Amino acid sequence: MEGTVKCSANYVPLTPINFLERSAIVYRDRISVVHGDLKFTWAETRDRCARLASALHSLGISRHDVVAVLAPNIPAIYELHFGVPMAGAVLCTLNIRHDSAMVSTLLKHSGTTSSPKGVVYSHRGAYLNSLAAALLNEMPSMPVYLWTVPMFHCNGWCLTWAVAALRNVTAKGIFECIAKHQVSHMGGAPTVLNMIINAPSVDRRLLLGKVIVMTGAAPPPPHVLFKMEELGFNVTHSYGLTETYGPGTVCTWKPEWNSLPPDAQAKVKARQGLHHLGMEELDIKDPETMQSIPPDTKTRGEVMFKGNTVMNGYFKDSKATVDAFKGGWFRSGDVGVRHPDGYIELKDRSKDIIISGGENISSIEVESVIYSHPAVLEAAVVGRPDDYWGETPCAFVKLKDDCNANADEIIKYCRDHLPHYMAPRTVVFRELPKTSTGKIQKFVLRQKAKDMGSLSRTSRL
Amino acid sequence: MEGTVKCSANYVPLTPINFLERSAIVYRDRISVVHGDLKFTWAETRDRCARLASALHSLGISRHDVVAVLAPNIPAIYELHFGVPMAGAVLCTLNIRHDSAMVSTLLKHSGTTSSPKGVVYSHRGAYLNSLAAALLNEMPSMPVYLWTVPMFHCNGWCLTWAVAALRNVTAKGIFECIAKHQVSHMGGAPTVLNMIINAPSVDRRLLLGKVIVMTGAAPPPPHVLFKMEELGFNVTHSYGLTETYGPGTVCTWKPEWNSLPPDAQAKVKARQGLHHLGMEELDIKDPETMQSIPPDTKTRGEVMFKGNTVMNGYFKDSKATVDAFKGGWFRSGDVGVRHPDGYIELKDRSKDIIISGGENISSIEVESVIYSHPAVLEAAVVGRPDDYWGETPCAFVKLKDDCNANADEIIKYCRDHLPHYMAPRTVVFRELPKTSTGKIQKFVLRQKAKDMGSLSRTSRL
Repeated sequence: MEGTVKCSANYVPLTPINFLERSAIVYRDRISVVHGDLKFTWAETRDRCARLASALHSLGISRHDVVAVLAPNIPAIYELHFGVPMAGAVLCTLNIRHDSAMVSTLLKHSGTTSSPKGVVYSHRGAYLNSLAAALLNEMPSMPVYLWTVPMFHCNGWCLTWAVAALRNVTAKGIFECIAKHQVSHMGGAPTVLNMIINAPSVDRRLLLGKVIVMTGAAPPPPHVLFKMEELGFNVTHSYGLTETYGPGTVCTWKPEWNSLPPDAQAKVKARQGLHHLGMEELDIKDPETMQSIPPDTKTRGEVMFKGNTVMNGYFKDSKATVDAFKGGWFRSGDVGVRHPDGYIELKDRSKDIIISGGENISSIEVESVIYSHPAVLEAAVVGRPDDYWGETPCAFVKLKDDCNANADEIIKYCRDHLPHYMAPRTVVFRELPKTSTGKIQKFVLRQKAKDMGSLSRTSRL
Repeated sequence: MEGTVKCSANYVPLTPINFLERSAIVYRDRISVVHGDLKFTWAETRDRCARLASALHSLGISRHDVVAVLAPNIPAIYELHFGVPMAGAVLCTLNIRHDSAMVSTLLKHSGTTSSPKGVVYSHRGAYLNSLAAALLNEMPSMPVYLWTVPMFHCNGWCLTWAVAALRNVTAKGIFECIAKHQVSHMGGAPTVLNMIINAPSVDRRLLLGKVIVMTGAAPPPPHVLFKMEELGFNVTHSYGLTETYGPGTVCTWKPEWNSLPPDAQAKVKARQGLHHLGMEELDIKDPETMQSIPPDTKTRGEVMFKGNTVMNGYFKDSKATVDAFKGGWFRSGDVGVRHPDGYIELKDRSKDIIISGGENISSIEVESVIYSHPAVLEAAVVGRPDDYWGETPCAFVKLKDDCNANADEIIKYCRDHLPHYMAPRTVVFRELPKTSTGKIQKFVLRQKAKDMGSLSRTSRL
């Protein structure tokens, strides 16, 4: 338009680096990072990050070079989140639970589709996601954030304010940190919430202030949500993927839900809700026809996203990128339904759906019932091969200390609360394998179920 | 980077229109706008705006056409903030207090520098400013915002959530709306706050919840801030210009200030603070050398901004645009100092500084003292021409109902609280002329002081 200009005074590329620059001015002498007895202020953190960027530069690192980091939640990884992009380079955070062979594969990253994919974020997307995350968490200007989520998971961009980091996540450590640092916000997968609600009373502390907990990574069983609220935590349920910079939706709480019975409250809170402010569009579509499914709570489809907080693509894997964006939407691979109010509810990952005798069984629904059994600490349900049914549900269960239950009791409990075809035919009691973010590794359990062989054949032998 | 793509699924131009699209989904059946007995939901507001855009289109309005609106705070002006940009056009909000000659000039907008300037905003800037404004106001997901600030002033972009609009701003109306609609947030110039604290007790209502009030437009006298907090309002002080989409800085409250005596608290709250999250840089510079001034609370310079929430320029006035951005910064024309903690404090608009016998007198500092006099309702100080001193301070004062004070008392009070050269030599009791946003029109008073003629010459006659 006539009379207007685009110049350095009115146009600045969006980057989360500028949040640090601003924090170093506005919150100069306030605590930025606490780790054990170590404390930094925002001015110190900014200076350390600038020196880190300078050191990387003098090592010959420059624009678009990839700097990989293998570290738990220590201040160094936080600083690398700023220092690496300040040097113009790309930060690649590796999972500390990988073994050396996997780390070696990742460090060589050659362009195959079989290895884990490297999800590429932009400065612009990270900037916008940070603002959306702060709003999503209803964060005031000086929150105290307890880092229970590993920073190598979806990066720590989103929450660049006061931080108290926990290297090892234990219920005792969480309660101690909350009391010591007046934690206002934290995040954690449902298994972390489960750890909190099952903490022995000696490890617990009374909450003096409200602690807002963002949960996600897996749909939280209503029972777990219910117990958390009882303890005084305020749980917000969000859902997303690494490809959506972490949370992409939030189950925005409606005031009228306050009058529902506690059980019903937990059930609606377990829905994934709607897209947050930084995401432009959310839909559930038939993956073939790309038609939106009706909001009837029954019809299933694939959850898809559009927006600035969707990844740029998979590093050196154009085929996977093109597949993920086929049809102009990011395809999550998650299966869900829509409620009449528009809120979405995940039914399963496509690959976690159990198909038994032609019926689709949501492993999440079966798990929710098993979690509500008083003796159960953790549960995961996968398909077990079956010559007759194709698959039947197989439950892996960890009981609470001092609790007892046998397979028949669990199966009967499920048949009392679910259509019979959905109840597990097999129950295995054991520790559940988990990722570093506390997500249960279903692929490990799926393999174990496969190794058991067909239930029908076995029983017929 | 190899493997990445830019497509409709991961790159969307930033526009506040999408906030409305999202609200129509997430807050579908919640109240969007309340005006008297009229109420709309977000789904209705979105539909009305879409129909408005369609109607504009069928009238032949298209991309880059300017649609001007002359309206008070009624729902129609709110809807135009979305409907006009939805049609691709440019919204131009006119001040309802302009006379017909001025409106005629603005509608013809020919490219002269003498008329009021048309400040041009971008969709991107408005989007980013909206997010920053929500964070700045510490807004939860469902605030109730009372529109006491005219929407034609800096536009209503910034706060696109639940809105209760007041057509005419009176203290009685404000207290009634707060009680009726459980208002959580509102905004207002110091004169609006002054109206609130001086409301007769019959018009007042007890505040049941915390009401966050954003004030700005003029530096609020500490005394006014103090009384507002006493009434239970939580006042946040921000500062900006139309050119910065409204608020550009905020006086972020430091917890340690809670232990200061109330008077001292009001004094620090009257500082303009530091740039908000959507603005990239704030500085006070010598306007000639462009050197930053030291943070010594004494050295004065011009307040300057850089960031995405700075205007694109002045419509059809390239010369004014170039002048405003000279040196790569947006020059505010405001004079300020910096405190050692970095917070800025305005001393005056360049043109409001009174130069008396070679001394710079901040009209704001003199006004702050006059406001603290128990009989004073409102005050404004300008320079009166003086053959000997160049200028001397001239105070225009409005007393509270049932209160008395004469000029000598006001002058003595100022001499007791200020260096003598800063005390007014002239005090005029009268109504103060104001803009529609409640800002006192100093240019009118300056003319009145000029018409009085030189004080020294007069007294020597």
